[in-house]
Amino acid sequence: MALTIGVDIGGTKIAAGVVDEDGQVVEHLLRPTPARNSEQVAETIAEVVAELVEGREIEAVGLGAAGFVDETRSVVRFAPNLAWREEPLQKKVSDLVGLPVVVENDANAMAWGEARFGAGRGETHLVCVTVGTGIGGGLVFDGTLYRGRWGMGAELGHMQVVPEGRLCGCGNLGCWEQYASGNALVAEARQIAERDPARAAGLLELAGGSPDRIEGQAVTEAARRGDPAALAAFATLAAWIAQGLDDLAAILDPGCFILGGGVSRASDLWIDQVRENFARDLTGRGHRPVADIRLAELGAAAGVVGAADLARLR
Amino acid sequence: MALTIGVDIGGTKIAAGVVDEDGQVVEHLLRPTPARNSEQVAETIAEVVAELVEGREIEAVGLGAAGFVDETRSVVRFAPNLAWREEPLQKKVSDLVGLPVVVENDANAMAWGEARFGAGRGETHLVCVTVGTGIGGGLVFDGTLYRGRWGMGAELGHMQVVPEGRLCGCGNLGCWEQYASGNALVAEARQIAERDPARAAGLLELAGGSPDRIEGQAVTEAARRGDPAALAAFATLAAWIAQGLDDLAAILDPGCFILGGGVSRASDLWIDQVRENFARDLTGRGHRPVADIRLAELGAAAGVVGAADLARLR
Repeated sequence: MALTIGVDIGGTKIAAGVVDEDGQVVEHLLRPTPARNSEQVAETIAEVVAELVEGREIEAVGLGAAGFVDETRSVVRFAPNLAWREEPLQKKVSDLVGLPVVVENDANAMAWGEARFGAGRGETHLVCVTVGTGIGGGLVFDGTLYRGRWGMGAELGHMQVVPEGRLCGCGNLGCWEQYASGNALVAEARQIAERDPARAAGLLELAGGSPDRIEGQAVTEAARRGDPAALAAFATLAAWIAQGLDDLAAILDPGCFILGGGVSRASDLWIDQVRENFARDLTGRGHRPVADIRLAELGAAAGVVGAADLARLR
Repeated sequence: MALTIGVDIGGTKIAAGVVDEDGQVVEHLLRPTPARNSEQVAETIAEVVAELVEGREIEAVGLGAAGFVDETRSVVRFAPNLAWREEPLQKKVSDLVGLPVVVENDANAMAWGEARFGAGRGETHLVCVTVGTGIGGGLVFDGTLYRGRWGMGAELGHMQVVPEGRLCGCGNLGCWEQYASGNALVAEARQIAERDPARAAGLLELAGGSPDRIEGQAVTEAARRGDPAALAAFATLAAWIAQGLDDLAAILDPGCFILGGGVSRASDLWIDQVRENFARDLTGRGHRPVADIRLAELGAAAGVVGAADLARLR
């Protein structure tokens, strides 16, 4: 049984696992990401890989990194949260571990994991949207991961949805991830609590009385208890998620969307509204099939499983 | 030399041509589209094809139709300007002409023509945007025409760019084609002339003094003469074209964009501004290559050439 290793390199932690041909994680490890030192990150990855290789025959290693990865899948051109600029990650790790290495954008790796072994099994055209602090994206067309001409495709969170809208970390205004993410949910809830504290009484109570101290967990809990402000914040989030999916359906006509990420843990509070809004506003509605909107199935393992499988298919 | 026929079926005219393997149009015909009778349209297509076949060995026929074409490339599910609903065009025309027929969305056919024989030669990932009355789109990824799961992809004009924006023919609000098309240019120029007639003096003169009578030709002519209102309308158009291209670059990371359609005949008045705005606002700028923005090369023949080539590659 051919085994590969997948590594998911995030801003705070590095998750790695040995994965078999069926996408099963045979062994799993977790390490904190070394703070803002690119050499140390590569070394930590190598250590984790060495530990997992021990006593096994490993074919290759796939690395999923939160950043722009070039089209040769070797260099991380830019990773805001990992202090990488033109980082030759493939070569560094490959030299350290002595195995073939491929580098992939982390959201691409997650999308591939879901497409092959998760919610997207059997679908040929799918769009994966990771709703967390921001938005990550991955595209699978005709059963193949889509990277774009220079490997920078699927930055779905950076389509503009509001002209002159909220400032985004990318430097632009009005990006989708400023309206349809965990951060956006919190911002919306805070704004409602600020403007109409009476309506947000339950939410404010959970946040110790101050709008500024409202966090995602409180919004979720308050919404579950029926707090109208928290529910309104979720309704706004659902509307913005649906709008982006409608835009992507106009452009890409996928068979299904897969929604994952931290915010999808509270999907019971928004998924039905997303489906409803999506179908209501789909361009050409009535004359075309409506894409399925599904929740991701692999959770946090998707990135590891996807990176490992991409290494196998290298 | 294998010959195929391409037919471009528009709301007002049907263009058809015999095309060789190098994308050269050997013979060309033009007919008015029969008014709003689907049987007559199929018959007219068959007549045109019969006339072109005369004395030649023709391999297959490709039809480009302005509408949603299903994924089997047989049925036009919905064509607002041709009165078609679930029209089995492939079967109808094939029965009449006795040759293999494939049906394709007209903008897809144009994109394919440009990709193979026009401005996109040698590019693997390109996005074709036809700026006319509205916006048409075509996508070529990894050297293959992208259709989506159900053949409805590349409806680029229907991404929303303004929440609660201008009403679109598709029934939604704020679609890109309401801001970045010939109609949008005219609407913008009329609005400026309405609000500030002094600034639009030159433009109004060309339009007989009335803002309502301003048409595209007058805006172009006035802009060429330096009329500030007309120039402002073109600047707004350029900004909206660039914004949509930035959104598409975030999602698709193409190697180049190809801009065609009626409005591109006045491209000297806006193409530089589009390129400038696009590069300025590209997400991840400075850390990625900037896609080339080119003008279409095949003009009105692109649809015929593309449809004919798709029939050859069927």
